[in-house]
Amino acid sequence: MITINKERFLSDFHFQGRIGWIEGEGLFRSAYSESYFSARNFIRRKMEEAGFSTSVDSVGNLFGRLESREKNTKTILVGSHLDSVGGGGYYDGALGIIAGLEALRAIKESGANVKHHLEIVAFVAEEGGPLGGTFGSRSFTGRFDSYPENALLGEFGLDLEKVQRARANPGDYAAFLELHVEQGPFLWKKNIPIGIPTHIVGITRYLATITGEANHAGTTPMMDRKDALYEGAGLVHAWLDFMRRQEGIVGNIGILKLHPGEIGVVPSRLEIGFEIRSENREKVDLSGRKIIDLSNQLDRCRAEVKLWNHKDAVPMDEHLVEVIEKTCRNLDFGFTRMPSWASHDANPLARVMPTGMIFVPSVKGKSHSRDEFTEDAHLVQGVQVLAETLLAVDKDLS
Amino acid sequence: MITINKERFLSDFHFQGRIGWIEGEGLFRSAYSESYFSARNFIRRKMEEAGFSTSVDSVGNLFGRLESREKNTKTILVGSHLDSVGGGGYYDGALGIIAGLEALRAIKESGANVKHHLEIVAFVAEEGGPLGGTFGSRSFTGRFDSYPENALLGEFGLDLEKVQRARANPGDYAAFLELHVEQGPFLWKKNIPIGIPTHIVGITRYLATITGEANHAGTTPMMDRKDALYEGAGLVHAWLDFMRRQEGIVGNIGILKLHPGEIGVVPSRLEIGFEIRSENREKVDLSGRKIIDLSNQLDRCRAEVKLWNHKDAVPMDEHLVEVIEKTCRNLDFGFTRMPSWASHDANPLARVMPTGMIFVPSVKGKSHSRDEFTEDAHLVQGVQVLAETLLAVDKDLS
Repeated sequence: MITINKERFLSDFHFQGRIGWIEGEGLFRSAYSESYFSARNFIRRKMEEAGFSTSVDSVGNLFGRLESREKNTKTILVGSHLDSVGGGGYYDGALGIIAGLEALRAIKESGANVKHHLEIVAFVAEEGGPLGGTFGSRSFTGRFDSYPENALLGEFGLDLEKVQRARANPGDYAAFLELHVEQGPFLWKKNIPIGIPTHIVGITRYLATITGEANHAGTTPMMDRKDALYEGAGLVHAWLDFMRRQEGIVGNIGILKLHPGEIGVVPSRLEIGFEIRSENREKVDLSGRKIIDLSNQLDRCRAEVKLWNHKDAVPMDEHLVEVIEKTCRNLDFGFTRMPSWASHDANPLARVMPTGMIFVPSVKGKSHSRDEFTEDAHLVQGVQVLAETLLAVDKDLS
Repeated sequence: MITINKERFLSDFHFQGRIGWIEGEGLFRSAYSESYFSARNFIRRKMEEAGFSTSVDSVGNLFGRLESREKNTKTILVGSHLDSVGGGGYYDGALGIIAGLEALRAIKESGANVKHHLEIVAFVAEEGGPLGGTFGSRSFTGRFDSYPENALLGEFGLDLEKVQRARANPGDYAAFLELHVEQGPFLWKKNIPIGIPTHIVGITRYLATITGEANHAGTTPMMDRKDALYEGAGLVHAWLDFMRRQEGIVGNIGILKLHPGEIGVVPSRLEIGFEIRSENREKVDLSGRKIIDLSNQLDRCRAEVKLWNHKDAVPMDEHLVEVIEKTCRNLDFGFTRMPSWASHDANPLARVMPTGMIFVPSVKGKSHSRDEFTEDAHLVQGVQVLAETLLAVDKDLS
């Protein structure tokens, strides 16, 4: 059993949460902002104080490294992201970095003889934004569906060359481990301290356009109208009703635009953005077909439904899931396998190296909110599982 | 029977429709635009060619005047508005002006000895816009709930002093008559050439805000959500369903805004703009109460409903309605009494002087559309009813 310095960990963790915090508003630490750089400097200093060599890559990902005595060995990577949504909490992302820092400090102090190099990473720009989500980790893995425009990159002091230079060699890495708050209420409701994601759920988005006919809202009798809202609202409600009755899948309609949007004009067009998340592809397809079925049942309007984008569910490495389970059993911590309903840096990482995640409970499931909160005791349990898992993985993997 | 010069009327009418017309797009003749001034110059020239004295008041309303031989007599006013919505048709408004022009030309040519001065008006800015609807006729009557800001007036070369100076003395006027296209399908469906509005319907608007809670659309189980859209879409559909089952009243939801409007966030707030039109106040109140009833039935969200604005139904002058009816009977034209479901310059005018309207059919009820159309034969019947009514009113009124 490795000995964690709880006070040091909690002190560092809560201190970082003050960098970018506005009282009553939450954390404002968007990627490449002043508070973001300030937080990164703080982490870097802590890494150096612990005796780790540090580096920042060409897009801004920060690394702290504990070298093994072995020379020709791979690296085990541990960490998460340092940026926040605007007005979010300070647990999301930062926890995985400070936990990794503490785990490596504890391992170093224990004098354990690790076979692998150990490395902490603080990824940049995981949260959605102009650059797209998980920008730092996608740069690290080099996996882009399409690169952001150079003009956009320029706004952040970047260019395509810098993005491409940030790509690491996956062959240098044995595994990636990310501790994160659940962001949902599952663990908290069941009072289970550790969740072990088996998948990051897939995300499928559809865009439907309901087309009716604009008309004068006084002179056009109601039964003569082709009211895109009347028929569209029926579709919206029926689809969400359908989704609420499914298990193992969630759906959301977060985008809705009404045209022409004038009080005295019968709506001509309603644009609806649908999102479906599940680890089960069949259920995703069924929910997508439901949109089309409902569209085909419209009365006087017509609908066009198109697939906007689709990302398959990403499985975590089965061996790592088993190692984390075994670690929890050894520590006598309650745990459960579960899907991750949110995406994470673990998502791009899992595509290029064995990747595992550890969840701790989010009180009331609050996330992306200043009210985001996890009990200190659960944070510490998370760090313990992370540190023990690191050592177990170090032994297991070549 | 007065003799109308059909060819001259139709030629002038269709010619004006080319001023501001974009092929395939419709009429673009918003108040104070270049095409608007060009059309006004055309009308003014036609008035002067007919031997009428012309004037433009301080907000831009154009008048053409045929003096009676009587000196101490009132004026009968006839006309409508010259501006259009963007991409509208060229019947809406302009018909009432060119019809008034032709009626006065025909009366002058007939040598009829009229007791009243006769005056054609081309009002400015009847269509909704930054200045609010019926701006020209409200300036003429001096009836403002509140004046537009001076900064806004300035954008149109106006100021408060000019608006106030446009106010006429209602005591100088005996009546106002407005010929207009119906803008709805009622007359067209029933194949009746003349409609006689008894009221302009009242308009009541409510604004409802449904408040739920923003949450991560992946990690928040669907049954734990306070989804403002799920509950709001149910309310929207149920209210429109209710309105479709009523008679003598119409409802519309033309404004809908979803917050925060992000695909991956459960909607926190839905703003809904309701409009109710009827000449029957009880039905309006019932429909407003239905919004509140439905709001009270929300499950996990709450709603705030507020009255946005209310305009009572405006009755047309009963004597004028009877004179128009009698004129139709004498001409052997089919006619029907009916409400006007749209507002008109007749609305502010009716508040300060006896006012009557005459409708002609709109094919398929199309309005505020480049496809707006009325048969030439119906246009001519409208002019005949207008001219005969003018003479009858001239005889009847002191």
